[in-house]
Amino acid sequence: MSKIKGKAIVAQSGGPTAVINASAAGVIETALANEDNFKGVFGAHNGILGVLTEELFDLGKENPAEITRLRCSPSAALGSCRYKLKDLDTNRADYERILEVFKAHDIRCFFYIGGNDSMDTADKVSKLAAETGYEMIAIGIPKTIDNDLACTDHCPGYGSVAKFTAISAMEAGRDTESLYTADTCTVMEVMGRNAGWIAASAGLARRSDEDAPHLIYLPERPFSIEQFVADVRRCLDEYKRCFIVAGEGIRDAEGNYLADAGGSFGKDSFGHTQLGGAAEALRAIVENEVGVKCRTNKAGTSQRNAMHFASATDAAEAYLVGAAAVKAAAEGITGKMVSLVRENDGGKYACTTALVNLADVANGEKPLPVEFINEAGNGVTDAFCEYARPLIAGNVELDMAPDGLPVYARLSKYMVEKKTRQRYDV
Amino acid sequence: MSKIKGKAIVAQSGGPTAVINASAAGVIETALANEDNFKGVFGAHNGILGVLTEELFDLGKENPAEITRLRCSPSAALGSCRYKLKDLDTNRADYERILEVFKAHDIRCFFYIGGNDSMDTADKVSKLAAETGYEMIAIGIPKTIDNDLACTDHCPGYGSVAKFTAISAMEAGRDTESLYTADTCTVMEVMGRNAGWIAASAGLARRSDEDAPHLIYLPERPFSIEQFVADVRRCLDEYKRCFIVAGEGIRDAEGNYLADAGGSFGKDSFGHTQLGGAAEALRAIVENEVGVKCRTNKAGTSQRNAMHFASATDAAEAYLVGAAAVKAAAEGITGKMVSLVRENDGGKYACTTALVNLADVANGEKPLPVEFINEAGNGVTDAFCEYARPLIAGNVELDMAPDGLPVYARLSKYMVEKKTRQRYDV
Repeated sequence: MSKIKGKAIVAQSGGPTAVINASAAGVIETALANEDNFKGVFGAHNGILGVLTEELFDLGKENPAEITRLRCSPSAALGSCRYKLKDLDTNRADYERILEVFKAHDIRCFFYIGGNDSMDTADKVSKLAAETGYEMIAIGIPKTIDNDLACTDHCPGYGSVAKFTAISAMEAGRDTESLYTADTCTVMEVMGRNAGWIAASAGLARRSDEDAPHLIYLPERPFSIEQFVADVRRCLDEYKRCFIVAGEGIRDAEGNYLADAGGSFGKDSFGHTQLGGAAEALRAIVENEVGVKCRTNKAGTSQRNAMHFASATDAAEAYLVGAAAVKAAAEGITGKMVSLVRENDGGKYACTTALVNLADVANGEKPLPVEFINEAGNGVTDAFCEYARPLIAGNVELDMAPDGLPVYARLSKYMVEKKTRQRYDV
Repeated sequence: MSKIKGKAIVAQSGGPTAVINASAAGVIETALANEDNFKGVFGAHNGILGVLTEELFDLGKENPAEITRLRCSPSAALGSCRYKLKDLDTNRADYERILEVFKAHDIRCFFYIGGNDSMDTADKVSKLAAETGYEMIAIGIPKTIDNDLACTDHCPGYGSVAKFTAISAMEAGRDTESLYTADTCTVMEVMGRNAGWIAASAGLARRSDEDAPHLIYLPERPFSIEQFVADVRRCLDEYKRCFIVAGEGIRDAEGNYLADAGGSFGKDSFGHTQLGGAAEALRAIVENEVGVKCRTNKAGTSQRNAMHFASATDAAEAYLVGAAAVKAAAEGITGKMVSLVRENDGGKYACTTALVNLADVANGEKPLPVEFINEAGNGVTDAFCEYARPLIAGNVELDMAPDGLPVYARLSKYMVEKKTRQRYDV
């Protein structure tokens, strides 16, 4: 595609991370600095929802210092959403509405920061634009704590959640070590519906056999209560205590979530399985079957926003993919996601970016590979730790306020005047 | 009492904190540096249990660098316990056993780091020693994340848990702010069985009305489901989201724990009320009565060991009370606990130590005062924030390893040869 002149828009989607704002900063700063190609940079309020409802901010009016501060501010400053667009065939109206809003504001570049659903959305918008003759570029920017996107070595957001998960396991593990005479077991539940990357990262805390976590259960391996009870008993024999990490999505061989075993709290108010109850289910097993006291820890949404102990490597790479997306767009490239490529710089970790097809990411998924899971299915291998360790390196410098807590950016969100007459209900 | 020569022993009790090891370091380093008074410094394995079973370490044999590293290492490096000694009248045997072990090793100073039960133990040991003519000193060193000890402005351990609670509320609050279109409410459950000091500390994160937490529920005020539902609805009207913090021990006007309302998981395997289910109970209310999705976060034991974001002020004061205990003992003082005294140094926070009677601490308790709770009973006052803010100031410098995580001390625990012939079963 030839070089494009027009406005750029950036949107954030799905569960926030500690560094999704760093990617936004990479987009905004790089695009604002390139006035040849970008005649303004807008933000969409709450991801694609803000495009559909034409709730757009003019990011060029923000204080540049606040944009820079996004690099050390967790969560999605533009607002996020979980709105999944259906197929083009079944819901063409949504896609046409997106193009209508883009056209109304002369938006020619769409940067979507998200997971595989977002890559799918970006891909379809790009294709419909081409089909209908509207010249525009769509570039995806990877973001997920789950680290399960295809076609990239790892995902921005993962290094930081991995670091926080590791320190939480290390610190709570020391608690169990100190107080094993009373609180003998602890279960720490972490996010990860289908992939065990986050649970695995707790293994980074384990420098010796006695260190927590002693057991890690992953959605990739069917969970067996009998094996679990035997594993816990063995740890109690060896260490007098047991620190267990479990992914929220662990399930038995038939695919039933453990969280369901705990009774009614395993379902949400709509009768759906409410993930997040795995720890309570495991606690019940430990107390009833093994007969020792068990505590549960569940950081919940704290884990994915823990900028206070985020990985500097992760934050830098998140910025990098945002900036790389703008550079690719400036060259007229469309339909791609920026991926992270690991390079071995004389044994030292290094990372560059590449471009992959949006469609390939949209339709892929990357579970924890077999070689990263130990044979017993209750821990990780050295190969996993070698993969993950460089991703957690370095602390992000925070902008500390006199009140003892960090200052996190909050944008002014200067709303852009609506140009379409239609009100669009989503 | 005249100056004493003999060995000192230090023990840690109850739930660990981020800085209980800093207090141990204050005791150990100060006592080892004073050979005139202290002919060696022992540690008891797992608090008073280690005295009863005569499992003692010789701390003088440890690498001094590892003792210094205790200042930035969470949890109880000597091991802790929840063993509550009964009254002298009903269980004289335990107290006599303690004195037997002390006499066997010429232990003349007992430093007990813990909460009010530990102060009670130290007091009774001291009194029985005096009664039976064994010259010894017992000094208590305050420790509790709950901040509910009488006779002291605040307790070492509180500043750090307060800081971690505040950052967790701030960061998870940003998550709810970003994703209110899908995850509209979040409940964060924190420790605090009888006192709301920890829950209150989340209020430090709130710099403006829109900031989390919007609602804080404390054990000091009876919890009403009707009022709660009205509070949440008002927040949704005002902010489109609601971030709630609840102490684990919130209960209704009749004293029933909310955690009980959630069904069987509210009881532990022994049929006791299992605190820690308050968040799930509140989530059920939000989803069923208000009809919006609600997430739950429960840091559990991670919150009390979060050295990675601990308060430098707290760590320094924890060391200070340990050192002050040894100085008092060296002067022949016994039966006292070191307290923290807040001084107003020209408007600037400063803190010194004093000595208070062990018995007064043992029999006291300090709930959150009325002037720290807002009128509606769902938040804290500015007066609370002014009290708590100095306690969270400063970050502790960690000893970071090349693997990207901190190095926390682990003692070699050189066991002292047993001198009593009796095996004591606890």
